[in-house]
Amino acid sequence: MPTRVGCSGDDEHALRDDRGYNKAVTESLEPLMLRRDEGGIATLTLNRPEQRNGLFRALIGALDEALQRIAGEAETRVVVLAAAGPAFSAGHDLKELRAANDVTSHRAVFAACGALMQRILALPQPVIAQVQGVATAAGCQLVATCDLAIAAQSARFATPGVDIGLFCSTPMVALARVVPRKAALEMLYTGAMIDAAEAHRLGLVNRVVADGDLASAVHALARRIAGKSAAVVALGKRAFHRQIEMPTAEAYAAMAEVMAENLLLADAHEGIDAFLAKRAPRFQDR
Amino acid sequence: MPTRVGCSGDDEHALRDDRGYNKAVTESLEPLMLRRDEGGIATLTLNRPEQRNGLFRALIGALDEALQRIAGEAETRVVVLAAAGPAFSAGHDLKELRAANDVTSHRAVFAACGALMQRILALPQPVIAQVQGVATAAGCQLVATCDLAIAAQSARFATPGVDIGLFCSTPMVALARVVPRKAALEMLYTGAMIDAAEAHRLGLVNRVVADGDLASAVHALARRIAGKSAAVVALGKRAFHRQIEMPTAEAYAAMAEVMAENLLLADAHEGIDAFLAKRAPRFQDR
Amino acid sequence: MPTRVGCSGDDEHALRDDRGYNKAVTESLEPLMLRRDEGGIATLTLNRPEQRNGLFRALIGALDEALQRIAGEAETRVVVLAAAGPAFSAGHDLKELRAANDVTSHRAVFAACGALMQRILALPQPVIAQVQGVATAAGCQLVATCDLAIAAQSARFATPGVDIGLFCSTPMVALARVVPRKAALEMLYTGAMIDAAEAHRLGLVNRVVADGDLASAVHALARRIAGKSAAVVALGKRAFHRQIEMPTAEAYAAMAEVMAENLLLADAHEGIDAFLAKRAPRFQDR
Repeated sequence: MPTRVGCSGDDEHALRDDRGYNKAVTESLEPLMLRRDEGGIATLTLNRPEQRNGLFRALIGALDEALQRIAGEAETRVVVLAAAGPAFSAGHDLKELRAANDVTSHRAVFAACGALMQRILALPQPVIAQVQGVATAAGCQLVATCDLAIAAQSARFATPGVDIGLFCSTPMVALARVVPRKAALEMLYTGAMIDAAEAHRLGLVNRVVADGDLASAVHALARRIAGKSAAVVALGKRAFHRQIEMPTAEAYAAMAEVMAENLLLADAHEGIDAFLAKRAPRFQDR
Repeated sequence: MPTRVGCSGDDEHALRDDRGYNKAVTESLEPLMLRRDEGGIATLTLNRPEQRNGLFRALIGALDEALQRIAGEAETRVVVLAAAGPAFSAGHDLKELRAANDVTSHRAVFAACGALMQRILALPQPVIAQVQGVATAAGCQLVATCDLAIAAQSARFATPGVDIGLFCSTPMVALARVVPRKAALEMLYTGAMIDAAEAHRLGLVNRVVADGDLASAVHALARRIAGKSAAVVALGKRAFHRQIEMPTAEAYAAMAEVMAENLLLADAHEGIDAFLAKRAPRFQDR
Repeated sequence: MPTRVGCSGDDEHALRDDRGYNKAVTESLEPLMLRRDEGGIATLTLNRPEQRNGLFRALIGALDEALQRIAGEAETRVVVLAAAGPAFSAGHDLKELRAANDVTSHRAVFAACGALMQRILALPQPVIAQVQGVATAAGCQLVATCDLAIAAQSARFATPGVDIGLFCSTPMVALARVVPRKAALEMLYTGAMIDAAEAHRLGLVNRVVADGDLASAVHALARRIAGKSAAVVALGKRAFHRQIEMPTAEAYAAMAEVMAENLLLADAHEGIDAFLAKRAPRFQDR
């Protein structure tokens, strides 16, 4: 039930746009993004439902800032990226792009968006996208970039930039690394929507669930990961994204080193001892 | 209805083999390849049905030349690669390969074939394969290389070089970049045929349609892409094939630059303005 | 029928642990690995069912040695990697890892395991995994590394290192190169089992068969490949693993050269001549 994710609570921070720019879009009294923490799971909720959570610069900035903070939080073990309202995210804000009509400013927008995507990849914690409604253009890129994604049955995905004369060239960096090449090209050339089942078939999402089960399915997955050693998960995530870009022989050399380092962690000792003693491990995240 | 694609028409060019070599194979009165243009869609039809459109050198040359010309045609927005007769393409011409039994000549054949594949990748226009019957060896490579592909239900695919002692080493460059690794290896080691449904499951084709619907399905897809800005599609295609071979961080840097350049195009201004005004865009391909 | 694979026969070699270390694990009277040869197909059977064929160092060593020998055997055309008992392989031996608690020793284990995987990739002969029961951690890596794999319907796969505080960083080198990225990450972060059907959907195995048909399905596939020219298959396998790590243009240049070399082989002449004469080829493996 993503529309309830934004409800206030003790552990909720409102990340407001405090840079004073683009007031027209961001002057809503609602915070740009909501954060809720529970059991080591930080749920960040894009909170511009009336703008279909378009990634205008202030929202990119708010999300980037929240992730930067989370990167340093030992107590946060998993991040859920959710969205309020009927759409997950409709990509870049076109009014904003068109208004700031100079190359320098455009470069800055896309650099900021690319930096956000790379912050997700570099974050110690796994990030799970919780997708309802449409995820288009940079919104589809966000889903492709997250480590994991679960989609509601009615969710749909597209990279429709070509329809407005702006090819989804940055979104395709993420898309083309998770779905087969011809499928990515069809989405990019036609701008056509694919449904959740097709997104699953192609590898863009891990699972499709009934709309009403979305939040609970995501949280079940998040809780499962939150039960592991955060130190081990962080080591593994960093290693995954390193090795995937290496030739095989180089990857094996690097990962053998990572395994040996991993075995120096207290949690590896505890985990193996617990396994051999047939008891549950007590991880200490180090 | 691929058998009708070759019918003559005003806008049809016949690309004849004018190099005077390999007469035995190419002395048919029929042109090697047919071209038909309609609504910005150039349909190139391999026209050696009696040789199952085997890629002998003259046909490679004719196709390469046609694509080279198309690369400079502002009015051509999409290319359809079709084939006359019951087979799409049966790969290299074995008689020709065996006749020219010296390394230099063989190198030249495979270099020419590789150059053709890379011309498809470098072409500003998207290329859609329209596949009926068998697409084997270099014929399968052609399908894998095209940006998009639609297969008739009865189409079949194989890389059977191993059966004649000539491993499909050049076809696998294209194949292994669009289908999962173990599936590619099974095709290569066994030479076995896969059917259209399996080709779809593996990502080798975008879609499978009833045999009688093949040409119309391909043209519907081509028309959809032809309705976009050709300048934007060309920019996007070039960018796609660049970024897919880059590490992620480098790809993001390059694509942010592409996005900024894209926003300088008149069609991006028009597309965004039209979107914001809720009207259809009028693209000018620049 | 994997439980019978280990039965003694004339052509069976027992590869014993003759290094005198880790006696506790390996002091069984049974050989560590069984080998059976039939019709050019060498079947290597991991033979520590009571330890679920965990890849302790002696077994890695025995397998590596057997493959090293096979690499030089002209008469061996295909390798089947099978396992005795209810499990294919449960990955590294945790007791051994925990016992040898120093970085140098751990590095050596993972280096040996990585070298084994790369020996499979470098082996002239294709390797087919015959998978029943669980294939977890380094066992799953073995399946991912083999050129081809067939799974019994009841087989299951996981990379559960995270559950014991030891992320499957070396297994993911193989896994992430054969299954889509998000699927690999879910397996790695959650440690969850996937069944054979899902492994097939993801590309981790080529085919799933009824449990009772596993050995016969694997041998049918092996026999099919054993009927090709071993020289051509070896050339193709080496070429595949080279080109997959190259940029496309470089891959085409390298593979054009491989094709020209391939055409110098006697088996290419014979194969093409036989094809043109519509007779079966008589390959001589050169």
